[in-house]
Amino acid sequence: MAKTSNEELLLSGALSAWTTNIERADKLLFSLTPEQLGKEIAPGKNRLIYLWGHLTAVHDLMLPLLGLGPRLHAELDEPFLTKADKVVANLPSAEAIKKDWNEVNGKLRDGFAKFSVADWLQKHASVSAEDFAKEPHRNRFAILLSRTNHLSYHLGQAVIRDK
Amino acid sequence: MAKTSNEELLLSGALSAWTTNIERADKLLFSLTPEQLGKEIAPGKNRLIYLWGHLTAVHDLMLPLLGLGPRLHAELDEPFLTKADKVVANLPSAEAIKKDWNEVNGKLRDGFAKFSVADWLQKHASVSAEDFAKEPHRNRFAILLSRTNHLSYHLGQAVIRDK
Repeated sequence: MAKTSNEELLLSGALSAWTTNIERADKLLFSLTPEQLGKEIAPGKNRLIYLWGHLTAVHDLMLPLLGLGPRLHAELDEPFLTKADKVVANLPSAEAIKKDWNEVNGKLRDGFAKFSVADWLQKHASVSAEDFAKEPHRNRFAILLSRTNHLSYHLGQAVIRDK
Repeated sequence: MAKTSNEELLLSGALSAWTTNIERADKLLFSLTPEQLGKEIAPGKNRLIYLWGHLTAVHDLMLPLLGLGPRLHAELDEPFLTKADKVVANLPSAEAIKKDWNEVNGKLRDGFAKFSVADWLQKHASVSAEDFAKEPHRNRFAILLSRTNHLSYHLGQAVIRDK
């Protein structure tokens, strides 16, 4: 068995953290009924369905940001990203969000599987080549880490809900 | 200027994510009065002071886990780790927790600054040498990532509180 390089070990640790958090989210969100998803995490706060749509929109945005192709569900931006919860009257159903969530995370997973360490260290799409030359930490790997943390952040909120 | 290696870029990304989250926590927690810290994040849920003590205990445990020395505040385990919130009657004061928090995170920061990539890829203290030979991902770097996510998770909860 070839020895795994240091850079591969570091990368696989970060990919594993992403996958673990996706699996935690799946386990939690798939277990909830549409009625439970319609509840606020705390009085006056976001509903679980909003958090789920928000995470799906943010993960969908990762596709172009990481150079993995165009958005799949830009229609999620208005209800779940640019507008606050309870502003847009007709949200997509839980079933529709689940379908989008799985689709988006599946496409990310397939893209991640093809990225080498060098690919991860390329600039992400929101930074100019000029800025990236001075700030090499603004790479795709930083997006992976920050979106993993973003997912954890909202998972922490989702578990607060009353059972 | 020497070119930064891939492994150093990956590591610095993860260290930066840790630092960013510590700074977010500092900003939030230092801004709260003892009265605000005594409030529950949602009805019947943990109080902010409990989350803070819990995070401090978990970070303190990182010291021996990463080989950075003995615990500094094992006395935090009972009120904030092994027992649930509102079980232990007399919690340390907000001022005392803040002091411990800063001390523990400072010691982690100093330790992190001295770790090379190879140091981060050493086994952590809770895995045997035998298991680590088969499971090289059970390294110190995985602890860094998982504790960063843990911090994000509870930060997400802390911001829920009513202002």
